[in-house]
Amino acid sequence: MATVKAAILGFGTVGQGIYRIVNERKEQLAARTGAPIEIAAILVRNLERPRPDTPGVLVTDRFEDILAIPDLDVVFEAIVGEEPAGTYLEQAIAAGCHVVTANKVMYAKAGASLEAFARESGTGVGYEATVAGGVPVIKTIQNLNLANSITGIQGILNGTSNFILTKMRKEECSFADALKEAQELGYAEADPTNDVSGFDAFCKLMILSGLAFGEQPDWEHVPMDGIDKLTLDEVIDADRQGLRYRHIADVRRGEDGEILASVGPVLIGPDHPLYGVDGVDNAVAIETAYAGTLTVTGPGAGMYPTASVMVEDAAVLLKQPFRKLVTD
Amino acid sequence: MATVKAAILGFGTVGQGIYRIVNERKEQLAARTGAPIEIAAILVRNLERPRPDTPGVLVTDRFEDILAIPDLDVVFEAIVGEEPAGTYLEQAIAAGCHVVTANKVMYAKAGASLEAFARESGTGVGYEATVAGGVPVIKTIQNLNLANSITGIQGILNGTSNFILTKMRKEECSFADALKEAQELGYAEADPTNDVSGFDAFCKLMILSGLAFGEQPDWEHVPMDGIDKLTLDEVIDADRQGLRYRHIADVRRGEDGEILASVGPVLIGPDHPLYGVDGVDNAVAIETAYAGTLTVTGPGAGMYPTASVMVEDAAVLLKQPFRKLVTD
Repeated sequence: MATVKAAILGFGTVGQGIYRIVNERKEQLAARTGAPIEIAAILVRNLERPRPDTPGVLVTDRFEDILAIPDLDVVFEAIVGEEPAGTYLEQAIAAGCHVVTANKVMYAKAGASLEAFARESGTGVGYEATVAGGVPVIKTIQNLNLANSITGIQGILNGTSNFILTKMRKEECSFADALKEAQELGYAEADPTNDVSGFDAFCKLMILSGLAFGEQPDWEHVPMDGIDKLTLDEVIDADRQGLRYRHIADVRRGEDGEILASVGPVLIGPDHPLYGVDGVDNAVAIETAYAGTLTVTGPGAGMYPTASVMVEDAAVLLKQPFRKLVTD
Repeated sequence: MATVKAAILGFGTVGQGIYRIVNERKEQLAARTGAPIEIAAILVRNLERPRPDTPGVLVTDRFEDILAIPDLDVVFEAIVGEEPAGTYLEQAIAAGCHVVTANKVMYAKAGASLEAFARESGTGVGYEATVAGGVPVIKTIQNLNLANSITGIQGILNGTSNFILTKMRKEECSFADALKEAQELGYAEADPTNDVSGFDAFCKLMILSGLAFGEQPDWEHVPMDGIDKLTLDEVIDADRQGLRYRHIADVRRGEDGEILASVGPVLIGPDHPLYGVDGVDNAVAIETAYAGTLTVTGPGAGMYPTASVMVEDAAVLLKQPFRKLVTD
């Protein structure tokens, strides 16, 4: 039984989670995929910075060292920022590797071309972690695409926004105070612009659009609002009427075949599938041609949820007969 | 491109749904699986009974005629009752077919042996439709089993019971009146015993236990209650306190490693993931080691939801390299 060799790009929270899970689940992964997975190398930006001990693993700050590993099978990408992440993944695919990413901005822009390149190269791309963290929305839509079709998607795709809206409603606290607590709890970044402006949810929605409909709408034509303009009075008024503001990313195919998308706060009632989703959870309601509306809910971020779906992605790719199809 | 030949056993609601979807989605299925699927034969109990027109399809009341079809690839089983369904599936596997079933009582009892037999025979079993209809709980757990693990499962697995409880709460109507409406709407069977006694949910729970934990608890040791003993007063009292009765099937591994399961009405509060699931919907909250609790919600029954996941199951099986693994 040959060993599968993997590299991790970026050794922050998610990268460390991948390393831990691959080691904690050695036997399970070997049993499920047919071969044990070994983390052969880790790419870091700064070699001097303290990091957890990783015995026997090449730790390098040069991506060339990663590409030089003989028979590398899988590259996990957990770097912040679009570049050099996208270029690294392209080079990894060219080198015959499966790639797994959590990078939503990069993937919203470059996902389609990375997937096409991977197909040509006989490898695969896993990107479950780019949308809704640990919630298996990508695989659910991939399966629905086999024999059903998606007519629309509505998602709570930014946990920070949902946490803030929940806190404003339940504790009648201001946007600023709720944001401050989200930052203290580690849900929001030091610069929370991408979260509260709606851009984070927008990027995830574009990834879902590409998967569900085979295309994205023109980015400039998608109305995008964050939760930063909602006042506490509006949230409280809604609550008194039994309604709730949710920050919803919505995409569907219009009657003329064009893709219609929007991102922003929406007032919904108790019959809406996203009404009950509180706190940092993410949720996606998938409207289908044959199976009504399916809703998946769960943790949209965090070290272990995100890292575990990335390792799962790798396992799914390793089970598939990619190389066979190419060499047959 | 060779055609995949399939047979449908049973031509009631679900069987007819499969026939329609396979025909409506001909190009899509061919593109996704690599070959078009053709319904070659349909097994009916009574040849004299009127049924929709199925041009060019062998319609027979003898299972031997189905087995005699050369190069049959897939058998869809949509017969009511444990037998002869189980025996037919065993014979279909022996003949080298993938099998797809919606038969929960049969699968709760015989699923493990059918799967083992299929593995030996180089074929596969699809059983997404046995639990929660169109809700993709089986595939979600199969994926979680790759790199994560399940610590517990709580499900609303019987749509009829959930419909009745919802109606009692929202409209303050009696159990008997709510049941009558469920029957009139076609949610409950003429004999609703399996629904309201909890046995239907119990069988689905046993299937989930086998999948998540690799084993089922002793059936006799699982406390099983239906909703038929709940009074309207109890439901109304709970509602006034902001609580709700849900009929919950629960399974988890106890501290000594034994499987603990129960089926019955449970009083839950607004923080519970199943609190907001109203009407005929099914929902399953999957507690995981790494990704917190993931909840999937959607239609638990119906012609198209059930039939579409069965066709999806077939597509998943046809994409996998079963025969290759056997002949290599």
